[in-house]
Amino acid sequence: MKPSDDIKSTIQVCKTGFETRTHFREQLPELVENIVESCYDKECFEHIDAELIPSREPVIEILTRLREILFPGYFNKEKIDPTNLRYQMGRSVDLLFEILSQQITRSLRHECLRYDQPCVECVKLGYEEAVRFLESISKMRNVLATDVRAAYEGDPAAKSYDEIVFSYPGLFAITVYRVAHQLFEQQIPLLPRIMTEYAHSITGIDIHPGSRIGESFFIDHGTGVVVGETTVIGKNVRIYQGVTLGALSLPRDAGERLRGKQRHPTIEDDVIIYAGATILGEKAVIGARSVIGGNVWVTEPVPPDAKVVMDVPRLTYK
Amino acid sequence: MKPSDDIKSTIQVCKTGFETRTHFREQLPELVENIVESCYDKECFEHIDAELIPSREPVIEILTRLREILFPGYFNKEKIDPTNLRYQMGRSVDLLFEILSQQITRSLRHECLRYDQPCVECVKLGYEEAVRFLESISKMRNVLATDVRAAYEGDPAAKSYDEIVFSYPGLFAITVYRVAHQLFEQQIPLLPRIMTEYAHSITGIDIHPGSRIGESFFIDHGTGVVVGETTVIGKNVRIYQGVTLGALSLPRDAGERLRGKQRHPTIEDDVIIYAGATILGEKAVIGARSVIGGNVWVTEPVPPDAKVVMDVPRLTYK
Amino acid sequence: MKPSDDIKSTIQVCKTGFETRTHFREQLPELVENIVESCYDKECFEHIDAELIPSREPVIEILTRLREILFPGYFNKEKIDPTNLRYQMGRSVDLLFEILSQQITRSLRHECLRYDQPCVECVKLGYEEAVRFLESISKMRNVLATDVRAAYEGDPAAKSYDEIVFSYPGLFAITVYRVAHQLFEQQIPLLPRIMTEYAHSITGIDIHPGSRIGESFFIDHGTGVVVGETTVIGKNVRIYQGVTLGALSLPRDAGERLRGKQRHPTIEDDVIIYAGATILGEKAVIGARSVIGGNVWVTEPVPPDAKVVMDVPRLTYK
Repeated sequence: MKPSDDIKSTIQVCKTGFETRTHFREQLPELVENIVESCYDKECFEHIDAELIPSREPVIEILTRLREILFPGYFNKEKIDPTNLRYQMGRSVDLLFEILSQQITRSLRHECLRYDQPCVECVKLGYEEAVRFLESISKMRNVLATDVRAAYEGDPAAKSYDEIVFSYPGLFAITVYRVAHQLFEQQIPLLPRIMTEYAHSITGIDIHPGSRIGESFFIDHGTGVVVGETTVIGKNVRIYQGVTLGALSLPRDAGERLRGKQRHPTIEDDVIIYAGATILGEKAVIGARSVIGGNVWVTEPVPPDAKVVMDVPRLTYK
Repeated sequence: MKPSDDIKSTIQVCKTGFETRTHFREQLPELVENIVESCYDKECFEHIDAELIPSREPVIEILTRLREILFPGYFNKEKIDPTNLRYQMGRSVDLLFEILSQQITRSLRHECLRYDQPCVECVKLGYEEAVRFLESISKMRNVLATDVRAAYEGDPAAKSYDEIVFSYPGLFAITVYRVAHQLFEQQIPLLPRIMTEYAHSITGIDIHPGSRIGESFFIDHGTGVVVGETTVIGKNVRIYQGVTLGALSLPRDAGERLRGKQRHPTIEDDVIIYAGATILGEKAVIGARSVIGGNVWVTEPVPPDAKVVMDVPRLTYK
Repeated sequence: MKPSDDIKSTIQVCKTGFETRTHFREQLPELVENIVESCYDKECFEHIDAELIPSREPVIEILTRLREILFPGYFNKEKIDPTNLRYQMGRSVDLLFEILSQQITRSLRHECLRYDQPCVECVKLGYEEAVRFLESISKMRNVLATDVRAAYEGDPAAKSYDEIVFSYPGLFAITVYRVAHQLFEQQIPLLPRIMTEYAHSITGIDIHPGSRIGESFFIDHGTGVVVGETTVIGKNVRIYQGVTLGALSLPRDAGERLRGKQRHPTIEDDVIIYAGATILGEKAVIGARSVIGGNVWVTEPVPPDAKVVMDVPRLTYK
């Protein structure tokens, strides 16, 4: 049976389609060559022949296990009771130890090779530092408990402690910060920053792992909060969304010179900072129990027990 | 054949590696014991022997199904036409009913057991409330249509209604809010807040499910927006990124006392609030048709038809 | 053997449970009918019988491949060395070409049918525009290298170029913007906006693909940044979190009239804009080398080399 004219014309369309596709695909090899060549352009950035670094997936895995360990029963998929607690916890710690030690090793090795330093026993160091980290978990859990309580006391919309642990982005960001800060103190490169940037992408709260933050810390809502690398925060401090604790204006060439020096504010105990306040520079020492009003801009010291507020805005009629 | 010296030394390295690993792994059981023990520290938070609560995955599933139902054809993977609409919708509603009723049951049961209240017929209540929720869908869809229109009228960058439904984070946050508010009105615990915190993590827009918001509501860009629990917003209101409708300064011990009371602003019909404005407290009643300029700080009532703006900033030369 | 009374009563409970479930499920068909009917409500939005549009998953896939190509070796799962670079790159480009051309075709076809325009050769156009896009990759990589360098110079907390490429949300948002802008210039509908909204959801940085941005652009922290559709930004500009480059107050009916016109600021070379500044409207031309302080509100032109700062906030004692 001969194909009908209809089928013939359909086949023709298909053929044309196939030829079009082939025509464009034939250009791919040359495009690839151009792109590969431009990889060696000295101006550009590549990471060829370098060590693999900690990637997002294992970092999420580490933080997932850690939440199961730091807040037992809250984030497990199975119900935890006194009978199975030991088994569940053993499994979580075991998994955490393996991934964490591997990622620490990777972070160390990446720095070693990238910067042409001799790499001595990165695997052993990975295990060692993972154990050191695990030893700090009980202490971390105690500090996090003060943070949960601070949230409940500070937020009348909180219906229960459970709601805070389950759903408050501020507590998530603080948890990740406390974990990352511990690793930062252990001088692990890269990994802590990748952790806090993950929390930043989820919560909009950007806390540098290098900052030092006391217990009972509460961030409400939190989107847009920035806490810079050399910030020091006392106990019982409460900050709201959009608060920046940042560095002051830098001349164009200052980046290199200031690396590592204190460039950020000091916030003493019991301070409250309202939404959108911007506090910049190492001279901005906010004295204990002071209240910083919303949307203000502070670059000088504030004495204890003070209240800094914006002028009342102008009211006009249209 | 005897192994060569090279192979021998490689085997030695492997053996040392294995012993190192074993050495560190042998410390795990003690670490687990310490961690398990600290679970019972009275200061810390655990959720052992408590009921499972609504978790993130089913909440995402519920919101995915709801988007298919509220905006038919926009978020389905398959093409929807008048022929398969009824089948697709039937399937979406069926799936939604099952997961939603289960999660409502979980939310109720969690509260019952955690707070030692007698749990009466949580499963039946789950079904009942899920049906009640499904009955409200047509009404929700009507209100959401006014929100889409408000976005198109308010944003000259919008190329089409489709672009708004597909890609505007403000519309996503408002959709999740309208869903969560319906459940909040049905007095379902936990679930509504987990929903809005999910939208918060995606969009940076934090709307408490308890707030009451009229039709034709438009949030542009939206990152950093906060709408507190007892906020009341009229019809046809437009707000920009970084706007806070929040609670005023609280004394340290006020959390408990103020739980449930009105603590947030009232925004009347046709008000526009520009980027970064902070409006705090229940005394801040913004009169109809008023315009609040960017970055201002308002804690007092504003009459209708007013315009509140910041002073022109000081201009200096370097 | 007869069931014991205990088992009997258990069976009774199960039966009641089953009947309850059946009772509620029997209401589903009517609920579905009501929902289906309301789909045809003229006031509401549906996308029935329309073309499928670019969806989130392939857009994420496109951006994942592009990161592998634009920053070779940084985001690959396998280690890249000079031996396998060509194979890896070939594979990434191949995959990218297929998905990108398909999504471009979808975007074009969606516009064609939705707006009743005749659809001419959408598939061929998809291939053509994908090739055109691939040809622009080397240029994009060069510009992105200037952005990485600007970040390192501007941020003393940056420990290495690698840390910036791996973890800085600002660089991610700028990368997605440069990709989306290229497609916007090729007049592809929908796809560019879906890309930048994806970056927005991850980083809190909302850059419209239509804006024009020069090289060496640095966004620090970035949450809450908004860059509007008709904004023009020169070389070597640095902006911080919460900065808005937006449109001025619009009368209610202006949306339609202003579509496509310049409505956003112009930022000249070497300008720095601090956290939370709001710069609105096309009259706001910020002269070269000027510094805009945090939290200010600017709607007028600023001359070159100027410094705009807020008044010092009022200091009161409690």
